[in-house]
Amino acid sequence: MTSTAPLQVAEGELALLTDLYQLTMTQAYWKEAMHERATFSLFFRRLPPTRRFMLACGQQHAAALLSRLRFGDDALARLSGTGLFDPDFLDWLSTWRFEGDIWTLPEGTPVFANEPLMEVEAPIAQAQLLESLMMNLVQLETVLASKAVRVVMAARGRPVVDFGMRRMHGVDAAVRGVRAYRTAGLAGTSNVLGGLRHDLALNGTMAHSYILAHGNEREAFRAFARHYPGTTLLVDTHDTLEGVQKVVELMREEPGLGVKAIRLDSGDLGELARGSRRLLDDAGHEEVKIVASSGLDEMQIDTLLEDGAPIDAFGVGTQMGVSADAPVIDLSYKLVEYAGEPRVKHSPGKINLPCRKQLYRRQDDRGRYLGDILALRDEPVDAGEPLLRPLVQAGRLVEAEMALADDARERVADALPRFPEDVRRLEAGESDYPVTLSPGLERLASRA
Amino acid sequence: MTSTAPLQVAEGELALLTDLYQLTMTQAYWKEAMHERATFSLFFRRLPPTRRFMLACGQQHAAALLSRLRFGDDALARLSGTGLFDPDFLDWLSTWRFEGDIWTLPEGTPVFANEPLMEVEAPIAQAQLLESLMMNLVQLETVLASKAVRVVMAARGRPVVDFGMRRMHGVDAAVRGVRAYRTAGLAGTSNVLGGLRHDLALNGTMAHSYILAHGNEREAFRAFARHYPGTTLLVDTHDTLEGVQKVVELMREEPGLGVKAIRLDSGDLGELARGSRRLLDDAGHEEVKIVASSGLDEMQIDTLLEDGAPIDAFGVGTQMGVSADAPVIDLSYKLVEYAGEPRVKHSPGKINLPCRKQLYRRQDDRGRYLGDILALRDEPVDAGEPLLRPLVQAGRLVEAEMALADDARERVADALPRFPEDVRRLEAGESDYPVTLSPGLERLASRA
Repeated sequence: MTSTAPLQVAEGELALLTDLYQLTMTQAYWKEAMHERATFSLFFRRLPPTRRFMLACGQQHAAALLSRLRFGDDALARLSGTGLFDPDFLDWLSTWRFEGDIWTLPEGTPVFANEPLMEVEAPIAQAQLLESLMMNLVQLETVLASKAVRVVMAARGRPVVDFGMRRMHGVDAAVRGVRAYRTAGLAGTSNVLGGLRHDLALNGTMAHSYILAHGNEREAFRAFARHYPGTTLLVDTHDTLEGVQKVVELMREEPGLGVKAIRLDSGDLGELARGSRRLLDDAGHEEVKIVASSGLDEMQIDTLLEDGAPIDAFGVGTQMGVSADAPVIDLSYKLVEYAGEPRVKHSPGKINLPCRKQLYRRQDDRGRYLGDILALRDEPVDAGEPLLRPLVQAGRLVEAEMALADDARERVADALPRFPEDVRRLEAGESDYPVTLSPGLERLASRA
Repeated sequence: MTSTAPLQVAEGELALLTDLYQLTMTQAYWKEAMHERATFSLFFRRLPPTRRFMLACGQQHAAALLSRLRFGDDALARLSGTGLFDPDFLDWLSTWRFEGDIWTLPEGTPVFANEPLMEVEAPIAQAQLLESLMMNLVQLETVLASKAVRVVMAARGRPVVDFGMRRMHGVDAAVRGVRAYRTAGLAGTSNVLGGLRHDLALNGTMAHSYILAHGNEREAFRAFARHYPGTTLLVDTHDTLEGVQKVVELMREEPGLGVKAIRLDSGDLGELARGSRRLLDDAGHEEVKIVASSGLDEMQIDTLLEDGAPIDAFGVGTQMGVSADAPVIDLSYKLVEYAGEPRVKHSPGKINLPCRKQLYRRQDDRGRYLGDILALRDEPVDAGEPLLRPLVQAGRLVEAEMALADDARERVADALPRFPEDVRRLEAGESDYPVTLSPGLERLASRA
């Protein structure tokens, strides 16, 4: 019964989380003794119309998981049950492990169209099998971080807190999404498991149900503030400004409660923030902050702050939680080299770039980014440090490189101000940040 | 290090997958000895502009999981570490379990705005704690099934296969998404773990990388078809019609291969399908089917078939995998009753419906649906069978009711043709299918 199926995906089942053709093609490679090394490149061909860059995220995490992928006995038994696989192939699969190399950009690197986020080199029957899961893992964090960093930019230094867990796409998205949010620079999350696991501060206020259950808003405020001195009170259950007035009165009656903030969750947030600020200030409570939530996205936050709304922090959920305006990127994992030869699918109207690559980000002497150069991996390019780095070598994780993932948040904060202002704008449209091909890659590129 | 965090969420951690305020409010209820019964209603206020109905999905699965939610020792230790919770409360939480009732619509029921998908009745400290996870679980399947059923309708009886695993939002979305796809009526999935777990046929073809690795398209076709007699060959790696011609020649040379279908994955699918059909038919291969994929959604499929494209089956991924045009619904879990009294938040511009409810779907004597009536739970309404049914009673799953989830696919197939044609149309816009309030509910409703 599918109604009682488990929710969990155990580590031993992960190798089955793939597209069937990866396994049938792998069996074909095995039967044909095609064991030459292949290089696959993970990139996207186009930015979504509402993104001027993507924040590459999840690669280190994905590489660590993929480098220990195995087919356990249970997985093999289930494959055997499909009737598609030879017993000898399943025997071989029981010893399958990834023994190749994985190069990646450090997590938190802003990327543009056609730039590889990762490259995998291995015998083709190993590299092929990573495709589906790698794409699933990297796309989720990249999509979510790329949305969240826009929200962070819109908030102009004010804290942004993730409220999206309930509306994200399932359990893994909710938990791993917090990892992406940490990279993007969020200040906190309401998601307990996500925050604990991925080291982002937990934040929480109160819900309308608490007020409604008490029947009396003033008494609900009093009770909650006594339990949690320094808390945030939700003031819009009935009438927002009357709610603020009740908070002011409560603070007069019980000065020790130290209410830290009020939260507005409906209505005209700019108007209500101004009215609330006035009531709080008039009562001498300049220290009480105003938090706004209610279906916000980066464009609304930008407009509110442009208009001078006195909002100190934002709780953002629904729109950010699914990256509603760009929930998917056109991520590809393409064979670009096999047995030492360039390979490429000639896609009409698209630029096709074969071979192993390297990426350089040129900067001026003040550290400002001037443009990217996409080159062949081993081509000498005089443009600073190469960005793609070997994280897995001969199947083994390079531990020192893993640490790069832990600086992802700082990497984003450092990199963003170095880009031309045009790249950081929130409006839909393309930036003119240049991504050029090296002479070596230009010679091999085809524009079919 | 967040880079080495596990991917899995164990069943013992699920209770922590919630918003922090659920736990702080629960502690507040506990401190205040607020143990009266509450009713929360799960519904959405508006359909997305591109949906004329949603397919309620995931409720039985969610209720089964939620009814066995527990706070294990590890979870309690982690909560203790936050410093927000009293030891006595954590002791109480160690014995916490859901002992209330959950009413749900059967999975696969088409629903409209303001209709409850589920209602939870329990002491408030139990009902409150289900909110975030219930919403996360139900929203994912409901969003994905609601998109997928549109794709199925657009295909007019032709099989639709899920190719979306790589672009869905993480591991849980990919696996549980197949459950929603099964309900929506898809014919198969490429997702091995998803299909095995949720009982949907596995499908797979081949990728461009296989052709490119072989260098020679004709030899790649030959090798793959020998491994997998009756397979589907991907013909667009270089030039689509030349690819089809090679398939025709291969079948002439080796008639025993029994190629079942060709797959088109780029270019003008209608034109290429006509050209391919002509080549196949001219060679006497009327039996070879044409499968199309390549960023398809229901609108493109509809247009292709309107134009008479000879396509026999569709592989659909990216757009369906995230429900790109409506990746989220405005799902709410609202307190509607506490201690036997109606409760409601007065939201400006919205209709607010307190109290426990029941839903009726009126039909004429030929079984055609005439409209829905939303009523108070215990109000006598003469409109056929009530749709909300008790699945969890006093904390225990009603096993006979669980079986309703296993008929979800049949329920959808049975229900859709009974609705006015207007409800089934793919174009954006509202249908005029009537959802009316019973006299009892009308009296209590407020339009603030």
